[in-house]
Amino acid sequence: MADIGRTICNARLADGSRHDIEITDGRVTALRPPTDSEPAVLLLPPLVDGHIHLDKTLLGLPWVPNQAAGNTVADRIEAERQVRAARTVPESETGANIVKQVVACGTLHMRSHVDIDNQLGLKNLHAVLAIRERFRDLVTIQIVAFPQSGVVRSPGTAELLDAAIAEGADLVGGLDPVGIDGDLDGHLGAIFAIAGRRGVGIDIHLHDGGEGGIRQMLAIAERTRASGFKGKVAISHAFALGSVPSDRAAYTADALAEAGIAIMSHGPGAATMPPLQLLRAHGVEVFGGSDNIRDAWSPFGNGDMLERAMLIGYRANFRHDRELAFACDMVTAAAARVLGLGDYGIRTGGPADFVAVEAQSVAEAVATRPPRKWVMKAGRIVARDGVLALP
Amino acid sequence: MADIGRTICNARLADGSRHDIEITDGRVTALRPPTDSEPAVLLLPPLVDGHIHLDKTLLGLPWVPNQAAGNTVADRIEAERQVRAARTVPESETGANIVKQVVACGTLHMRSHVDIDNQLGLKNLHAVLAIRERFRDLVTIQIVAFPQSGVVRSPGTAELLDAAIAEGADLVGGLDPVGIDGDLDGHLGAIFAIAGRRGVGIDIHLHDGGEGGIRQMLAIAERTRASGFKGKVAISHAFALGSVPSDRAAYTADALAEAGIAIMSHGPGAATMPPLQLLRAHGVEVFGGSDNIRDAWSPFGNGDMLERAMLIGYRANFRHDRELAFACDMVTAAAARVLGLGDYGIRTGGPADFVAVEAQSVAEAVATRPPRKWVMKAGRIVARDGVLALP
Repeated sequence: MADIGRTICNARLADGSRHDIEITDGRVTALRPPTDSEPAVLLLPPLVDGHIHLDKTLLGLPWVPNQAAGNTVADRIEAERQVRAARTVPESETGANIVKQVVACGTLHMRSHVDIDNQLGLKNLHAVLAIRERFRDLVTIQIVAFPQSGVVRSPGTAELLDAAIAEGADLVGGLDPVGIDGDLDGHLGAIFAIAGRRGVGIDIHLHDGGEGGIRQMLAIAERTRASGFKGKVAISHAFALGSVPSDRAAYTADALAEAGIAIMSHGPGAATMPPLQLLRAHGVEVFGGSDNIRDAWSPFGNGDMLERAMLIGYRANFRHDRELAFACDMVTAAAARVLGLGDYGIRTGGPADFVAVEAQSVAEAVATRPPRKWVMKAGRIVARDGVLALP
Repeated sequence: MADIGRTICNARLADGSRHDIEITDGRVTALRPPTDSEPAVLLLPPLVDGHIHLDKTLLGLPWVPNQAAGNTVADRIEAERQVRAARTVPESETGANIVKQVVACGTLHMRSHVDIDNQLGLKNLHAVLAIRERFRDLVTIQIVAFPQSGVVRSPGTAELLDAAIAEGADLVGGLDPVGIDGDLDGHLGAIFAIAGRRGVGIDIHLHDGGEGGIRQMLAIAERTRASGFKGKVAISHAFALGSVPSDRAAYTADALAEAGIAIMSHGPGAATMPPLQLLRAHGVEVFGGSDNIRDAWSPFGNGDMLERAMLIGYRANFRHDRELAFACDMVTAAAARVLGLGDYGIRTGGPADFVAVEAQSVAEAVATRPPRKWVMKAGRIVARDGVLALP
């Protein structure tokens, strides 16, 4: 397959328009009216996974039964520490398995949280840095230094987070400042201080529900504005937004929008869903991610972001085509904006990065999640029929 | 492929045991210790879809955008009446498409609700009866005469339901006695009268939530016991059980168990989930079904009952292997019991009906939903690698 000087004929884009797409040296050099009438393929821009845990997955290992003794976040943190200690295959290998699997499904950009705690130190970071280097020509991996065991309650973690940024992590993470650390100001103070010193953004896991979760979001918004972090902070999960009255959710949405805070949802199975359409209507950027993929937290997940868009839409009660298109946007353009991907999208002058599926519309692609006919990166086919096509 | 006298070597069953399975004349004649050490395939009994709508699906048509103006059950009933009027392909064809698709995924038994109302008369029943006859050697189809537009509010429907049973439907359906018909006693009186006269069971769609839904369940349980219908009634959806305090759900579960009423859940996207484990602990049979598959109600769904078990487990917050096995049971043995399938299950003397997947356990099969390597019906391979293998 030639990797320069080719034309994709009669491609249907998300807006329904059809084009012949001319590619030179890995970039789109022209969108022309279609010259033939062969059945159109639907071309999506690359899928973007806004929240993945490359170091947690057990993909490729024999089936590991879930061991968590209870259903709280704290129970699962403890269960994971035990699974970790019993691992026989390094995270660099299982993480590489998931990267290969998701590229075959069309994901070419991702934000991976990486566990940093006083059991692991920077071990998982080093594994994910190695994965990033190994696949650098195929996929962009943004790394969040994630304090999975807390910050305040886990002495030494703040210093490790700081060191992680120095070694190549892109953002500082956080985790339930009240529910896990029991110290809102202590937790936020620590992570904002590191982010400020290092000049990076922040992405905070917030599972805490109800009014307690809302109050933490408002505190994060307040600190974001006061510290000059506008547009550099995301909150992942944000279940609380789905468990309070809609006027309270709307009030919180306004505060998040004013602080430029984005909200990530993976379409949780049992937790409450943030009101995605309300958030977007109030100016909040919402984006999608896989979250756990066959790991100590969850047996589910496979990294396919069209399936994830389906799950998000299913949980959000999306049915209309425009709603399914919104779910698709959450795992493509919206996630690309949150990740700050400048060179993204199907346009003249843009990268020749595409995902081809058989579908008549984006809505159909989300609802039916058809196999990926092929995935193109910089003008080169990198996967075909769901199978990686690399040398 | 010979259809008599064969042995399936080294099959792993759901309980983890391994056997060579000897088949003669379409039946299992022996389970023997495995004679070789080739990698075991996991054999499941046939998947059972406890709630499908063969007449609603638009599968095989070009993508039909969802038209519902609002999100209530009444809005969707009205939208569906419009979609129906605009159909250009008969239900017998789209329904056949879904039967072929689900058999390829391992479903060999199903309960299909079929719309009966004063717009359709018995038209859809005739289409599904034709589908049942066409595929009678491949799949068993139990038919529920379903009053999609209500009974009390839709004059003439009770007579049509009665006529439907006379023409071959197996059960009488019902729909939100209060939410749609606004007449609890009128609705239940009508459908129980038909079921009593015709000597058939009942399966009632109950979307109504909260205490209002609970009161309808208790009324159904009371009438079921009083009318001698114990063990012959199912309630589909039963969202209300997931929206009341757990002591109220437990009280209702006891009443349901006493009346032998089974509960069907499809793992709804946005509605509340019935507490499946609580129900089973109180002696209520819970089973699974697809519900809508790419129709005027929902763009989602594909009829794959392993995917359905995943969605049920995802919504129910199942994570442990025993919980995933429960989800699998809901779409196999439990559903078979509710449908009254006597000749079901993997055992000496049982039918040579199997679904083969690559997985080390039932939990893995539910979480990863692997392609079906093959599906066997009465000793004959009827699908291979997800593709129907029929002459």
